[in-house]
Amino acid sequence: MSAPVVGMIGGGQLARMSAEAATALGIGFRVLAQSPSDPAAQVVRDVHIGSHDDIEALLAFAEGCEVVTFDHEHVPPAFLEQLEARGVGVRPGPAALFHAQDKIYMRQSLNNIGVPCPRWRVVSALDQVIEFVAQVSWPVVLKTSRGGYDGRGVWVIKSAEQAAEVLAIPLAAGAQWLAEEHIDFVQELAAQVARSPHGQAVAYPIARTTQINGICAEVVVPCPGLSAERAVQAQEIALRIARDLNVTGMLTVELFDTGEEIYVNELAMRPHNSGHWSIDGAVTSQFENHLRAVLDLPLGDPRAVAPWAVMVNILGGDAGDLYSAYRHVLARDPSLKVHLYGKEVRAGRKLGHVTVIGDNYEQLLARGRHAADYFAGVIDE
Amino acid sequence: MSAPVVGMIGGGQLARMSAEAATALGIGFRVLAQSPSDPAAQVVRDVHIGSHDDIEALLAFAEGCEVVTFDHEHVPPAFLEQLEARGVGVRPGPAALFHAQDKIYMRQSLNNIGVPCPRWRVVSALDQVIEFVAQVSWPVVLKTSRGGYDGRGVWVIKSAEQAAEVLAIPLAAGAQWLAEEHIDFVQELAAQVARSPHGQAVAYPIARTTQINGICAEVVVPCPGLSAERAVQAQEIALRIARDLNVTGMLTVELFDTGEEIYVNELAMRPHNSGHWSIDGAVTSQFENHLRAVLDLPLGDPRAVAPWAVMVNILGGDAGDLYSAYRHVLARDPSLKVHLYGKEVRAGRKLGHVTVIGDNYEQLLARGRHAADYFAGVIDE
Repeated sequence: MSAPVVGMIGGGQLARMSAEAATALGIGFRVLAQSPSDPAAQVVRDVHIGSHDDIEALLAFAEGCEVVTFDHEHVPPAFLEQLEARGVGVRPGPAALFHAQDKIYMRQSLNNIGVPCPRWRVVSALDQVIEFVAQVSWPVVLKTSRGGYDGRGVWVIKSAEQAAEVLAIPLAAGAQWLAEEHIDFVQELAAQVARSPHGQAVAYPIARTTQINGICAEVVVPCPGLSAERAVQAQEIALRIARDLNVTGMLTVELFDTGEEIYVNELAMRPHNSGHWSIDGAVTSQFENHLRAVLDLPLGDPRAVAPWAVMVNILGGDAGDLYSAYRHVLARDPSLKVHLYGKEVRAGRKLGHVTVIGDNYEQLLARGRHAADYFAGVIDE
Repeated sequence: MSAPVVGMIGGGQLARMSAEAATALGIGFRVLAQSPSDPAAQVVRDVHIGSHDDIEALLAFAEGCEVVTFDHEHVPPAFLEQLEARGVGVRPGPAALFHAQDKIYMRQSLNNIGVPCPRWRVVSALDQVIEFVAQVSWPVVLKTSRGGYDGRGVWVIKSAEQAAEVLAIPLAAGAQWLAEEHIDFVQELAAQVARSPHGQAVAYPIARTTQINGICAEVVVPCPGLSAERAVQAQEIALRIARDLNVTGMLTVELFDTGEEIYVNELAMRPHNSGHWSIDGAVTSQFENHLRAVLDLPLGDPRAVAPWAVMVNILGGDAGDLYSAYRHVLARDPSLKVHLYGKEVRAGRKLGHVTVIGDNYEQLLARGRHAADYFAGVIDE
C-alpha cells in the first residue's frame, strides 16, 4: 500500500497517541525524538533520535516524509522555512505556527482579525507596567513572549514590587515581556478545530478545562452550563482563527469565560491535552483528525459518542510505580479508560490520563479523580 | 514505570491492533514476526524476526517477557511446553490452546463438558464416511483436524465421489479427517469472552457473523433478532468453555444458529475478526481485554457504546492501492472508522476493516459495505 509517511517532530505523549491513530489508518509514522526513552520512541517503529533545533537532524528526518508536523512548538521558524525550501510539507506551516511560538505576534494577529482578547502591551521596564495597570488595574499578567508552556513563563502580578522581580528574570533570546489584563474568569474553555490545507474544518464540542498550577488537571466535555450561543461563539472563534491564520492540523484555542464574555488566552497548533477525551469519547479523535488534516484527507466526525466525557490527568506523585496501581484502579472501575505514557515518575509530571464517558458528569469526575489520585499515590484505597 | 512486557507470537493484524491497546495501557509489547513487512512489524518498536516453529527463536523471543501470547494458533504444543518449562508464562497455556489447534481434541472436550456440537466422528476411509452419513444424512462436512483456518481445510460434501476426492488429499503431519454433521443454520453467531488466570471473565454482546467463501465478511452487534434467552445461552456456552478448558485471554466461540438450537462450530483463543467492532464500538476492545487477561489484570467493560455496531472486512480486489480510496471514502462518511493493516493487496486477502456505530444496523451495513467495496475496487463511486 503506497501510504504516505507523516513525520512528527518531538517524541512526547502527543506523538505516542498520534502513533496509535496512524497505525489504525495504515499510514506511515515517523518520530524525531530526543531520546529512545521518550514516550513515542518506546513504541514507534520508525524513530530518529535527534534534536528539533539541529537543522541537519531535521533535514535527515524529513527525507521521505510526505509532511512533517509537531508534538510541540519549539522548532525554530527559520529551520521550518529551510524544510519548506527543500520541498518538505510543513503543517502547520511556519507562518501559522509562529502564532503559537510568539505571544506578541499571536496577540497582534488576533487583534487584527477582531477576535476578543485581554488588553495587552509589550513592556520592557517597570514604568510601562505601571502605565498599563492605570488602564486595566491590578492584578496584571506578565508573560514571556516565547518559550513558556504549562504555566511556565506566566506570572500573575499584584504589585509593583512583584513586577520588578519578574522583569529582572533574564529573557530567552528573542523573547520580550508582555503585560496582559488579568481576566477574572469563572471558567476556562478549550475550543478545538481541525483544518486541512484545502480548507475543510471541523469543530469539537467545547470543553471546560481546569488548570492547577498552570497544568491542565481536568477536562469536561461539553462544558457544563455553557449556553448553546456561547458554545457556538467559541467554535466560531476557533474556526475563524484557523482560517485567517491558515492553520493546518489541530488548533486549540484556550479561552477565559467571565460569564459575560469570552477572551482568547492561548493557542496551540497540534493535538492538545484538552482533547485527550476524544480518543475514547469522540467518533474521531483529535489525533486521527490531526493526521487526516495534515495529509489533506477529508476530516472525521468530531462529535461525542456519549452525553458527557471527563478526562483527568495522572500527575506524578509519591507512588514510584504506576503499574502496581492497575490492580486496584481497573478492578474498581471496569469502564475507565487508562492511557499511560511510559514516563519515569516525577512529581507534578504528566504521566498519563484517564477518561470516562457517561450520563452524569459529576459522577464521571469523581471516578476520574479517584483513579488519578490512586495512580499518584494521593489515596490508597 | 516497571510495566511488564507481553510477547505476541505472530506479526499479523491481530498483533498490530493489540499493539495499539498496549501503547495506551503503557505496557511493553514485543512481536515475533516472520518478516519486517508483517502488519505488526511495520509499527511495533520491539520486533523479533523469526519463525514460530523455531524453538531457539521462541526462547530468545520470550526472554524478558512476562507472558507470551498469540496472534495465531500455529505454534507447536511441544514448544509451548518447553517455554513453560523455562518459566515463561504462556497464555493461553498449551493444554487450553490445543483445543484450538486440533478439532478432534476440541470436539471430545466439548462433548465431555456437555456443550452442544454437531455430531462428528474421526474417519480415515470412505466406508466410514458412508456409515456416518447413514446417521446424519447428506451433506456432511469433512475437515482436517489441524491446520485449517478461514475456510481452508473444510469441505461440504454431497456425495461419495466428493468424499473420496477429499479423502485423497494428503494430510499434514499429525492431522486426521473429521466428519461432521452439516448444520442447516439460519445464521452464524460469535460469542466472545475474556478470561484471566485468576478466573474473572467478561462476555461481549453476541455478534452475527457472515462468512463468504469461508472468510468473515461482516459482523453485526448485537445479533439482529436474537432472543435475549438465546443470547444469554450463547454467552453461557462461551463462559463455560473458557472456564472448563482453562482458557486465558480472549476466547471466540463460533456458533451455528438453526433458529431452534445453537451448536459450536469452532474455537479461537486470541483476538478474533468477529470482535474487531469492539475497538470503536465497545468500552473496552477485545485487544485491550486480551492484554489485561493474559497479564491477570482486572478486565474491562465489554459493553457496546451504541445500540448497533457493524464491521465489514476490506478484502483485496482489483484496486492496487488502498490509500487512494481514502479521499472518497472518508469524505462520503465522516463517521466511518477505517483500520488498514499495511498489507500488500492480493485478491481475497483481509487488508483491513471498517466499523460504523449507530441506531439502525441496516443503514450501518450499507455504509460499511459501500466503503469496503470502494476500497476493493468493486465500485468506483
